[in-house]
Amino acid sequence: MSAREESLTSGAIRTIDVIRRKRDGHELSPAEIAYLVRGYTRGEIPDYQISAWLMAALVRGLTRAETAALTDSMLHSGRILDLSEFTAAKVDKHSTGGVGDKTSLILAPLAAAGGLIVPMISGRALGHTGGTLDKLESIPGLRVDLSLTRFRRVLRACGCSMIGQTAEIAPADRKFYSLRDVTGTVESPQLICASIMSKKLAEGLDALVLDVKTGSGSFMKTEKDAVCLAELLVETSQRMGKKTVALVTDMDQPLGLRVGNSLEVEECVDILHGRGPQDLRDLALELAAWMFHLGGRAKTIPEGRDLADRLICSGQALETFCKMVSLQGGDPAAIEDPARLPRAKHRSAITSARSGYVSAIQCEDIGTACIVLGGGRETKEDRIDPSVGIVLNKKIGDRVSAGEPLCTLHHNSASRAAEARKLIERSFQVADAPPPPRSLIRSVIGKPNTLGTP
Amino acid sequence: MSAREESLTSGAIRTIDVIRRKRDGHELSPAEIAYLVRGYTRGEIPDYQISAWLMAALVRGLTRAETAALTDSMLHSGRILDLSEFTAAKVDKHSTGGVGDKTSLILAPLAAAGGLIVPMISGRALGHTGGTLDKLESIPGLRVDLSLTRFRRVLRACGCSMIGQTAEIAPADRKFYSLRDVTGTVESPQLICASIMSKKLAEGLDALVLDVKTGSGSFMKTEKDAVCLAELLVETSQRMGKKTVALVTDMDQPLGLRVGNSLEVEECVDILHGRGPQDLRDLALELAAWMFHLGGRAKTIPEGRDLADRLICSGQALETFCKMVSLQGGDPAAIEDPARLPRAKHRSAITSARSGYVSAIQCEDIGTACIVLGGGRETKEDRIDPSVGIVLNKKIGDRVSAGEPLCTLHHNSASRAAEARKLIERSFQVADAPPPPRSLIRSVIGKPNTLGTP
Repeated sequence: MSAREESLTSGAIRTIDVIRRKRDGHELSPAEIAYLVRGYTRGEIPDYQISAWLMAALVRGLTRAETAALTDSMLHSGRILDLSEFTAAKVDKHSTGGVGDKTSLILAPLAAAGGLIVPMISGRALGHTGGTLDKLESIPGLRVDLSLTRFRRVLRACGCSMIGQTAEIAPADRKFYSLRDVTGTVESPQLICASIMSKKLAEGLDALVLDVKTGSGSFMKTEKDAVCLAELLVETSQRMGKKTVALVTDMDQPLGLRVGNSLEVEECVDILHGRGPQDLRDLALELAAWMFHLGGRAKTIPEGRDLADRLICSGQALETFCKMVSLQGGDPAAIEDPARLPRAKHRSAITSARSGYVSAIQCEDIGTACIVLGGGRETKEDRIDPSVGIVLNKKIGDRVSAGEPLCTLHHNSASRAAEARKLIERSFQVADAPPPPRSLIRSVIGKPNTLGTP
Repeated sequence: MSAREESLTSGAIRTIDVIRRKRDGHELSPAEIAYLVRGYTRGEIPDYQISAWLMAALVRGLTRAETAALTDSMLHSGRILDLSEFTAAKVDKHSTGGVGDKTSLILAPLAAAGGLIVPMISGRALGHTGGTLDKLESIPGLRVDLSLTRFRRVLRACGCSMIGQTAEIAPADRKFYSLRDVTGTVESPQLICASIMSKKLAEGLDALVLDVKTGSGSFMKTEKDAVCLAELLVETSQRMGKKTVALVTDMDQPLGLRVGNSLEVEECVDILHGRGPQDLRDLALELAAWMFHLGGRAKTIPEGRDLADRLICSGQALETFCKMVSLQGGDPAAIEDPARLPRAKHRSAITSARSGYVSAIQCEDIGTACIVLGGGRETKEDRIDPSVGIVLNKKIGDRVSAGEPLCTLHHNSASRAAEARKLIERSFQVADAPPPPRSLIRSVIGKPNTLGTP
């Protein structure tokens, strides 16, 4: 700080100086970061100054200490839930977002059926990725805008509840997030971390399992970037006293076979019935196993996986899901009979031009195709059509003959379907030889010592 | 490029993509830059997106081509003066700003007395540096907000006129500039270049002499940075077909002895009388010589210096100044008798605590002290007190005895004087030995070949 600034402000923090210091690559103090967050949340600092700071933070990066301070300031901009009335462990799962990434709908009831409390505050569709709240809302009558009092009542009744961010939870993050979305400052691991963690830590958790996606359908395109983000998330969460692990998992193709809101709910119900695609089931069981382990319900991961498996086979997980749906105003009959979920009027197959093996899928294009069909938003004001989407007939490694369907569009508009078709046709690659086998779970970050080496 | 051409060549440009591309260090096309400048000037792109872009541009830098495109777009956001009615060469001088940097007030009448046309569009005080317009306005009655018609009339009558940026001149720059001022995005050589050049090129000049300041009282603290900025300015101006040189000059201490609006006018009148401090006189003559040389009035720099000297000795330069002041509504009697200029009520000396030689002056602090006294603005809304300021009794290299005055405050408030005193006391360094001699003019960038080596 120059003599002038020191003298003129006599200790008071000035926005312009905080911007300049980050611009020049200096580390900001917790007081400076708290000043920015508080000032912006209260409307005392204008958007244009915060957006300049966000860009400086994205380009220059934030240190671990700065990231922790930002998370902490955002967290304390709102209420932190007091769930001490529950004696069971409070455990949540959070994913960084992908295409067909629907595990939350399986995990919340599954973990709750296993005795954990899952106070899940989720998000909407963002960019090409789907949103848990939008999927839930395809269940007729279901509300995600519960008051915190009602949220607590649902938790008491069935052990899990899934709602959207309320005005009381991390209001700073809401403001920062919408500004980041329109100023090219989304893709900063540190800003992502503060945004995720400020919301998750407000849930009053004991433990958190993170699913950090990597590949063409995620925000972190390379595994290296995904691992960095996972480490940052785990460190920040552990620093706040939460047991935390992060699984770095594949998002080079959609998870499961269905992409689109009611289609994904249906696939989750399949899994809870003990059916459904293998990859989705494997990932859901693995994440559940970690939730049980961190929440003290399983000594080892295999033990946790077995517990999850049993809760599905016994129908307890599905029962909990129906109960939660009902408590949140939804129609449980739509879960028992998915034909009652919104259905698109038309089906239209996209076939392979040649024979061979599916070698790659441009996963972001599948997500975008779903938006084009009406299953996501291009602007914040768009209404989502819950019925539309894409059902994959082939995934990476599958054999396909010329003329055989690669996937099927579920749509309500021929022109939208034509546009989606163009995107999808170029997103599937078919080669002569099968691609090398791929692993769904790439690594686990923050593994507790108690587990030993795998 | 018209909107239609733009959409043909580049498809639809989206603000968020332009921000992201600059954020990631890519070179933007002229169409992308034109889109930003036009969209912002028309109010179609909000402040918060432009400030994110400005920060990305500052941190990542702009290429020469991007800088030229930005300058061009800003220039063409408004009118370019047509001064073809004047057969004499149109030449201006621009300084990047400093403390006590008052040469414009000397050079405009001096160059005009020598037969050049000087259509000078100047700025206000900025940060710790003074502004030509604020200094001029300390002359009772003088107006700097002339219409372009009246500006032209003054030019016809006396060969020079000094006004502020009108709404017609580079309106894009006005918007960008005020945003940069509050978002920590002033200190980018490329943004500085586009801002200066878009205004100067709108003056319809034949030639331009730039005074790029370096040192503790300038925006470019190191000589290396100053040389880079000088090269960028010269290249951009020459690319637009203007004869241009840049002098890189010392700003490690105030120029001349007086800092403050009416105090500086008085010192300029002294110079035009053939008196006044040596450094200010030397720099003014050197800059005038370059103006005469580029404007075709002097074959060599020494010849230009002689011409300037003669115009001062003969009283023609002072006469032109009085005429311009009068034509712009000012009282020429205040030039003939500076006692009529605004005067501060109180004088207060700051003395040296020890004997020795003045070895350094924190020049930015002197500028800030002047603001503290009321001679500059802390916010855009502040009114300037034209009477206050600082008169130096010692400059770098001068011998001083303990108790002898280093400078004298001219003030109207004891509390403000006390605050300014604190700043100034620590800004003077006194050492046992005299510092090495320093050169006022460090280098000349863009020297024409016709001059040969110096």
